[in-house]
Amino acid sequence: MKTLRSIEEWRREYVRLKEQNYHCKIGLVPTMGYLHEGHLSLVKQARVECDIVVMSIFVNPLQFGVNEDFDRYPRDLKRDQALAAKLGVDVLFVPELGEMYPQEPLTAVTVSGITEVMCGQSRPGHFTGVATVVTKLFNIIRPDYAYFGLKDAQQVAVIQQMVHDLNIPVIIRPCPIVREEDGLAMSSRNVYLSAEERQQALALNKSLQEGKALIKQGERDTDKIKEHMKAMLLSQPLIELDYIDIRSFPGLKALESLDGVKGQVIVAVAVKIGRTRLIDNVIIDMGEERVHV
Amino acid sequence: MKTLRSIEEWRREYVRLKEQNYHCKIGLVPTMGYLHEGHLSLVKQARVECDIVVMSIFVNPLQFGVNEDFDRYPRDLKRDQALAAKLGVDVLFVPELGEMYPQEPLTAVTVSGITEVMCGQSRPGHFTGVATVVTKLFNIIRPDYAYFGLKDAQQVAVIQQMVHDLNIPVIIRPCPIVREEDGLAMSSRNVYLSAEERQQALALNKSLQEGKALIKQGERDTDKIKEHMKAMLLSQPLIELDYIDIRSFPGLKALESLDGVKGQVIVAVAVKIGRTRLIDNVIIDMGEERVHV
Repeated sequence: MKTLRSIEEWRREYVRLKEQNYHCKIGLVPTMGYLHEGHLSLVKQARVECDIVVMSIFVNPLQFGVNEDFDRYPRDLKRDQALAAKLGVDVLFVPELGEMYPQEPLTAVTVSGITEVMCGQSRPGHFTGVATVVTKLFNIIRPDYAYFGLKDAQQVAVIQQMVHDLNIPVIIRPCPIVREEDGLAMSSRNVYLSAEERQQALALNKSLQEGKALIKQGERDTDKIKEHMKAMLLSQPLIELDYIDIRSFPGLKALESLDGVKGQVIVAVAVKIGRTRLIDNVIIDMGEERVHV
Repeated sequence: MKTLRSIEEWRREYVRLKEQNYHCKIGLVPTMGYLHEGHLSLVKQARVECDIVVMSIFVNPLQFGVNEDFDRYPRDLKRDQALAAKLGVDVLFVPELGEMYPQEPLTAVTVSGITEVMCGQSRPGHFTGVATVVTKLFNIIRPDYAYFGLKDAQQVAVIQQMVHDLNIPVIIRPCPIVREEDGLAMSSRNVYLSAEERQQALALNKSLQEGKALIKQGERDTDKIKEHMKAMLLSQPLIELDYIDIRSFPGLKALESLDGVKGQVIVAVAVKIGRTRLIDNVIIDMGEERVHV
């Protein structure tokens, strides 16, 4: 595995690869590092369908709010390198801040509508930061496929929309959430949690499973489902609720009732536990007219 | 010359070309059609350094304001095809509106700062429309080089900034303004002008030449230069002034004085003559520290 620090190095590598075999498929797994099984599942998926797997590690300041955890976001390149190499990553692209943003950038990629709800409401500017850095990574790496975890389901929806609207020649592969044995969704931020917080965090997945069960049992009033989930979450004293939302996916249209709803529906939660913000979701297939993301 | 209507057709052509010779250089000349010598000079430049020259013709609604001339913008595909073929364009890409915008787009590429002055002030949203459609065309055509005329100097500055900020793998070639024999800058919109308007429009270039002469003679107070130009322009009764501006180029920083200014300076004018909006500019090299665009 090669670890590359500069855009220019990768561009040379890219030309070399395409010269050898123009049809070689390049897969990109964009990450902020501090890898866990969720990231690794993306690599495994990329390994199946691509000839060259590139993983990027870049903690992108643009997608963090001023009071968020950019500075303390966990970083461990040595460990990440070992994990990535073991799984067969070919190129680890680890640009410094100054390589990605040599000057204050004036250009932003914005997606409207679907970014104004859920995490977009709690984290203004977050998805513009995401869309902008993902556009940059796509322009640098020029992958055929890119892999994103569905824990950040809204991010997947935003990137799909952007790729569609801007005719970006990359196929997006959304990949299932990977969970700990007890159900907690894998996240680099889980490392922030104390033992007690970690225990109470299980309520996220539990409430989602409960919400899903209600829907499967025929409940169609989304307010009722949300109230039920809210009670479960708030029974944990360390949990501060950000939102519980039930929407179409990936269109993220608000749904008061699930009556007659076809395609996919997302049940999503965001909470704060102590200083740590956690999100989780479940996507439910309501039958027919399935919208493949 | 092939005329292609769909993105898919070009994508197939692109793969075929790259399979044959991965290093073949593709040049893009993006236009809104109704070709004139200005456009043709871009093709000639592309022809010199590219193996394949693609010209796009697309009148992009996103870059027109609600009271602007989108509906009446001149169109003549037959004539454009003949002119493009004669100059050796290989592929004419002429997508329909629904091909470029199959749904209402949610994604926009915005460039801040340099879009808030000059034409950006008179035409809010214009440069977002330009940046977005150019990003789309770059993602569709995937050119190695793209050619833009310097009559739209602010557009060149915006696209250069965007390409830099987003790491777009395209080399931008700004090309000199082409003028009629009497000095009027070539523009598809010149066709709107009556004989009298056409005559008075000569004041644009004359005032710019006068402004340039003053600078060359040592005048350093930009207000004085602008006043002088303003008097010249307003001596033409059909001319309504939009702006006269003197700024650094391509950074478009306001300049009160030219004292000690190095690099390039743009003197730009925008006017309305009847219903027709016309722009023109001259870029002056102030010596040393030249910023190549």
